[in-house]
Amino acid sequence: MDLLRIASVPAATVSPETSVLEAVRLMSDERVGAVAVIREGKLTGIFTERDLMIRVVLESRDPGATRVGDVMTGQCISAKKDMSMGEALQLMTERHFRHLPVVDENDGVLGLLSIRNLLHNRVDKLSQELDSVVAFFTADGGGG
Amino acid sequence: MDLLRIASVPAATVSPETSVLEAVRLMSDERVGAVAVIREGKLTGIFTERDLMIRVVLESRDPGATRVGDVMTGQCISAKKDMSMGEALQLMTERHFRHLPVVDENDGVLGLLSIRNLLHNRVDKLSQELDSVVAFFTADGGGG
Repeated sequence: MDLLRIASVPAATVSPETSVLEAVRLMSDERVGAVAVIREGKLTGIFTERDLMIRVVLESRDPGATRVGDVMTGQCISAKKDMSMGEALQLMTERHFRHLPVVDENDGVLGLLSIRNLLHNRVDKLSQELDSVVAFFTADGGGG
Repeated sequence: MDLLRIASVPAATVSPETSVLEAVRLMSDERVGAVAVIREGKLTGIFTERDLMIRVVLESRDPGATRVGDVMTGQCISAKKDMSMGEALQLMTERHFRHLPVVDENDGVLGLLSIRNLLHNRVDKLSQELDSVVAFFTADGGGG
């Protein structure tokens, strides 16, 4: 449940037939850097600002005439919603993922996690933990 | 000096006259999400994957015929190299910046900082700090 608290819920989604231009409009409107690509209710890929840059702009494809399904990152790794934040952070760091879809047991998309939000949350949590450890050990130190 | 240890040094840079397509090729080659834009040796803006999406693709401009100077984020905020990591993190979080150029006293670009690298560093540092605080307070607790 923790992962979904940090993820964008619901995730912005498109179908493989959506044009790149429409996907980009959605990413702009929703202020997100990626959309999940859904086929028949199941996650089939992810399309990101990076994919747009590398597979569309750099290859001189027409965004209005290109389908997301042809330039998305397919077979993408996802997280079940009970994955711990530590595991998700490790996975994303090791694989250099900026986004990670969170799915249910049928590969239905529940949310989209960004490494930035995950890291922000981790910093907040560690800061709090540090404060409370210091407070705990110094609690009976009294005075000053 | 700390900021430069985490930033991309040297930063990938282009001039305002560089075409968007060339800038994109550089960002792809260097595996970065942004380039600093330099005019006469001074920082004049920043061009990011987000600018590419919003100001080029969404507005149907031709990447080969569009100059970076026309679609960059101008008058961008920068950090002097002696800014603390905490200050940089606060600035980037509050303003929702993903990238922050680090400059010298003449606005010459020394490096480009990403919020992701900054957050990763912060997580590592807080984890170490937490470990050493716990070790310090439990050092004379002895045994088991």
